[in-house]
Amino acid sequence: MSTSDVKLLGGWPSPFVMRARIALNIKSVDYEFLQEKVGEKSELLLKSNPVYKKIPVLIHADKPICESLIIVQYIDEVWTSGPSILPSDPYDRAIARFWAAYIDDKWFPSVRGIALIAEGDEEKKEAVQEVATGLELLEDAFPKCNKGGNFFGGERIGYLDIALGCFLAWLRVTEKLNNVKLLDEAKTPNLCKWAESFCSDAAVKDVMPETDKLLGFAKVLMARFKAPPAN
Amino acid sequence: MSTSDVKLLGGWPSPFVMRARIALNIKSVDYEFLQEKVGEKSELLLKSNPVYKKIPVLIHADKPICESLIIVQYIDEVWTSGPSILPSDPYDRAIARFWAAYIDDKWFPSVRGIALIAEGDEEKKEAVQEVATGLELLEDAFPKCNKGGNFFGGERIGYLDIALGCFLAWLRVTEKLNNVKLLDEAKTPNLCKWAESFCSDAAVKDVMPETDKLLGFAKVLMARFKAPPAN
Repeated sequence: MSTSDVKLLGGWPSPFVMRARIALNIKSVDYEFLQEKVGEKSELLLKSNPVYKKIPVLIHADKPICESLIIVQYIDEVWTSGPSILPSDPYDRAIARFWAAYIDDKWFPSVRGIALIAEGDEEKKEAVQEVATGLELLEDAFPKCNKGGNFFGGERIGYLDIALGCFLAWLRVTEKLNNVKLLDEAKTPNLCKWAESFCSDAAVKDVMPETDKLLGFAKVLMARFKAPPAN
Repeated sequence: MSTSDVKLLGGWPSPFVMRARIALNIKSVDYEFLQEKVGEKSELLLKSNPVYKKIPVLIHADKPICESLIIVQYIDEVWTSGPSILPSDPYDRAIARFWAAYIDDKWFPSVRGIALIAEGDEEKKEAVQEVATGLELLEDAFPKCNKGGNFFGGERIGYLDIALGCFLAWLRVTEKLNNVKLLDEAKTPNLCKWAESFCSDAAVKDVMPETDKLLGFAKVLMARFKAPPAN
């Protein structure tokens, strides 16, 4: 596979881009990583994802595939000789898809809420509580999914691991910036152990941003976000 | 397959429930249709979908599967001897999943917006415009998906047909209640023809609600929604 055959439009801090990178790593697919500049959108991005104009976009044999979880499923279905990402059993697949959708539709918006709501605001406490409740649901789901292995996917990282794990660095950054505890050893011991296994996995460790580097990036973003609009 | 092995918790007016029913029809699966009462939630529903407490839920061999598009994929993966619902090619699957997610995340919320925003409000016009723009995007997508057939899925109804088609009756009701034109022969001729083929398909015609019956249901719902809260 020549590198030019597979391109990924992305950026190192994006959890959604990380999903595609982990899936490509699991399948040992070489790819060209084309990083978008923050606050700019390349011609190639606008052409490849005209509906959302967002990263990640996987370009395979000149055809663009958008939306991170759809990209992960595509990678699993195209490079079938590598380890499977989705579970093989249809019911297990449905459960993995259910929680992955929950993470994107309900849980991660609350994580983002913590960052966006002003300090001291009552809604901030609510967002922290929503994140904690979501993690407890996922803690309960873990032993039903993992079949005794270290991962939601069992012995190996799978679809749900990727869907949740890509947010771990942002979770730590959110904890630091807001002085809150989100992933709590006492309440979610399974997830805490899982998070360690996930971050040290061969397919993950080189694409998971260091917390301090991501923290710096987050501070730059926040400064931009809070700056008065230019006239 | 005994009917008791497959149960569907649902309700006839729900477009999301219709997705599961069409998929079961395509695969010729007998099922028990357990209709929830409006405004109530059965014990079985609360137990089967504790996270969202929403229909549809498919119960297969006593195991619950939630979320309509996940149910459709599950049905496709379990009853493999029937016609395929997802396209066989991974790229075509990714495209079908992309537009199905677009419909749920972006397009249908605008349709609902039309119904919920008060008459005369500027936002109502915006919602109508958003719905029209979405339909034009899907009109453009149609010839790229259908490979010369009558459906997004080609010769037969597939995943994207189900994802969009389930909203056709609600679209007509929204048009009538708000005196607007949404599916327009001049702007979206492909979709208008597709809608006719879809509604008269054997897997669809018995589960697609009649517009007048659905209109009556919508009026009851709206009366309830607008009624002052009981003390």
